[in-house]
Amino acid sequence: MDSQFTPRINGARLWQSLMDLGAIGATPKGGVCRIALTDEDRQGRGLVVQWCREAGLDVRVDEIGNVFARRAGTDPDARAVATGSHIDTQPSGGKFDGNFGVLAGLEVMRTLNDLGIATRAPLEVAFWTNEEGTRFTPVMMGSGVFAGVFDAEEARGQQDRDGISVGDALASIGYLGAHPAGDVPGGMYAAYFEAHIEQGPVLEAARLPIGVVSGALGQQWYDVTVLGQDAHAGPTPLALRHDALLASARMIEAVNRIARDEAPHGRGTVGFVEVTPNSRNVIPGRVDFSVDFRNLAQAGLDRMDAAMRAAFGGIADMAGVTVEIRQVVKFEPCIFDAACVDSVRRAATRLDLPHMDVVSGAGHDAVYVAGRAPAGMIFVPCKDGISHNELEDALPEHIEAGANVLLLAMLEHAG
Amino acid sequence: MDSQFTPRINGARLWQSLMDLGAIGATPKGGVCRIALTDEDRQGRGLVVQWCREAGLDVRVDEIGNVFARRAGTDPDARAVATGSHIDTQPSGGKFDGNFGVLAGLEVMRTLNDLGIATRAPLEVAFWTNEEGTRFTPVMMGSGVFAGVFDAEEARGQQDRDGISVGDALASIGYLGAHPAGDVPGGMYAAYFEAHIEQGPVLEAARLPIGVVSGALGQQWYDVTVLGQDAHAGPTPLALRHDALLASARMIEAVNRIARDEAPHGRGTVGFVEVTPNSRNVIPGRVDFSVDFRNLAQAGLDRMDAAMRAAFGGIADMAGVTVEIRQVVKFEPCIFDAACVDSVRRAATRLDLPHMDVVSGAGHDAVYVAGRAPAGMIFVPCKDGISHNELEDALPEHIEAGANVLLLAMLEHAG
Repeated sequence: MDSQFTPRINGARLWQSLMDLGAIGATPKGGVCRIALTDEDRQGRGLVVQWCREAGLDVRVDEIGNVFARRAGTDPDARAVATGSHIDTQPSGGKFDGNFGVLAGLEVMRTLNDLGIATRAPLEVAFWTNEEGTRFTPVMMGSGVFAGVFDAEEARGQQDRDGISVGDALASIGYLGAHPAGDVPGGMYAAYFEAHIEQGPVLEAARLPIGVVSGALGQQWYDVTVLGQDAHAGPTPLALRHDALLASARMIEAVNRIARDEAPHGRGTVGFVEVTPNSRNVIPGRVDFSVDFRNLAQAGLDRMDAAMRAAFGGIADMAGVTVEIRQVVKFEPCIFDAACVDSVRRAATRLDLPHMDVVSGAGHDAVYVAGRAPAGMIFVPCKDGISHNELEDALPEHIEAGANVLLLAMLEHAG
Repeated sequence: MDSQFTPRINGARLWQSLMDLGAIGATPKGGVCRIALTDEDRQGRGLVVQWCREAGLDVRVDEIGNVFARRAGTDPDARAVATGSHIDTQPSGGKFDGNFGVLAGLEVMRTLNDLGIATRAPLEVAFWTNEEGTRFTPVMMGSGVFAGVFDAEEARGQQDRDGISVGDALASIGYLGAHPAGDVPGGMYAAYFEAHIEQGPVLEAARLPIGVVSGALGQQWYDVTVLGQDAHAGPTPLALRHDALLASARMIEAVNRIARDEAPHGRGTVGFVEVTPNSRNVIPGRVDFSVDFRNLAQAGLDRMDAAMRAAFGGIADMAGVTVEIRQVVKFEPCIFDAACVDSVRRAATRLDLPHMDVVSGAGHDAVYVAGRAPAGMIFVPCKDGISHNELEDALPEHIEAGANVLLLAMLEHAG
């Protein structure tokens, strides 16, 4: 490749592909409902596979329904350089979450075809099964099976609320493949890049088109139950109360303080609260709530866990209530491969695209793939930081910029 | 009456009557479900009316279904001295709330019959329609109509969820009387006393059998809506959040602080909370909650209202959310008649019953009656302060003590 020549993807074609794919499962408010392994997912997969075949890519499907489309390289011994994401959506999802990463990968292939560029290493674009975890749990199922985090047979046995298994659902939409999960022809990827909308407000606030993703926050989720004593709001003086909600309010404040103490990467969120009996003139005897802690280092998560237990215990004692804390989810923090991160940063620089290093607050398929292969991610801004919402939106110039960074980063590794 | 002789009620008979009435609508856990104007209420009313007639009392029913049972006095010009409460219950109510006051009044009549005591003034025991407000709103309907707070025709037009009106329900159980509400033969009561379980923990904590009730707290209830912005818990840094729940937690703490600043009579309670979308990894964009403020003086309630508006506004600004406060209920504070309160205190002293002055945190029929006649209340402890619950319980010796205080207080006024 001529070092003076910087290839560019076709932004209009990529945008049109996003709109075309977004039409499958389109919702009245401009969003998309294309839940994993439904008939809409079958239609979406079919369209993307058709596009891949039209681009001359070789398509294979693995035993958990992950789809890989390969563009051959010139060196038969070279390991592939890959990209990908997911095309399933939330029930009230948008056109960009996941879909952007897959179609940006396809656009890279189309661009190389247009320009007649052959790479030394093969290139692959993947779409991973059931990233969203809406119908079947766990989330990021396909990439998790690929990475060996989940067993393929166990994952296929997971059932939805109607008792339909992942395996049956895959078979019924025609995507129960034979290829062993995690087996990459020619050996595990030399590098994996995933382009994604940020799903947060940081890039937009900084007015930057590109985020160089250095890692992903680890997550520890908890269920908390606070038990006090129901009592009449009128006859019960403050000093004789065992108010589970007042104690919970103080714990919610503590969750925020604990996260602030772990700036800049600490996150603490209470998103779910259930009050019992939830009657306006009864002092609540029971409150159940969730805690979601995130941090970039496990040591930070450990500090947050300890600080929460200490704070909640003290608050409970003061308020005359009891508290029970159960950890329900744990994702390890992920630091992306330094060389991959550098490639993303270098690509943005070469393209004169203003950028900053960011961390991903959410989980992504790249986080699981990073357990098996060097990986990195590229973020582009989304409107108001909104995602998992029909209002999800992104600017064509940011979508184009992100795909151009993906192109250059992949080319750097594919030679 | 001989000043050396102190008459006593029959505690065993009163207890047995409470158990017999509690058998109508009895629940498996030992509570009572006898909701106003249901067939269970008809049966309960029938039993009490039968007992009143057996005691030689003259029964009348007014246009809102309030029932009055009168024992004649020796002075044809004397105004009656009255007592009463209610016999309807909460869906998961107990045997004592309301029922105690009515049957204690009946026991006063029975005792005077047993002892052959004639009073100068007539005596009345009333049970008021629909104190609990479970099926039909507003609460304390019967005493409110009696006191002129509600219009009788409007109250009869109130409908339950099935569209059945109070008037039709009264007619169907045979209690749509002809007597004008608020019209007392011989003129408005000279005094009204109501015995009631405390429904709170103060007397039990103080180990005292009698509470001399000096007044009832005024109440101001609010609906509060906090609007922020839904966002992903992971990708959204703390500084860029508009977390409606974190703001609400601080407001819940503020409600408690504002009430503490109004010690000893200030009460502040958040009993109801609804979080939207209430998903564990989404920062809540909306929280709706209730505020219940109580205080013994209107000036105190006004201070609490102002303090809340100032605190909530400041918290909302700090958290980048908006807050809307709507007042939905208002009950004026009530100071009971000094002579009636003194009579209760004197009766307890004469009976060597340890007692303290207390205020009622909840509304009672006596609060409405106090708008028309000198009134006072007698509280007895209930187990763990629990009421509106099938676990509601009271000790026979406290029930007996309260009825004896009622007897002496009524006799003091009836001559």
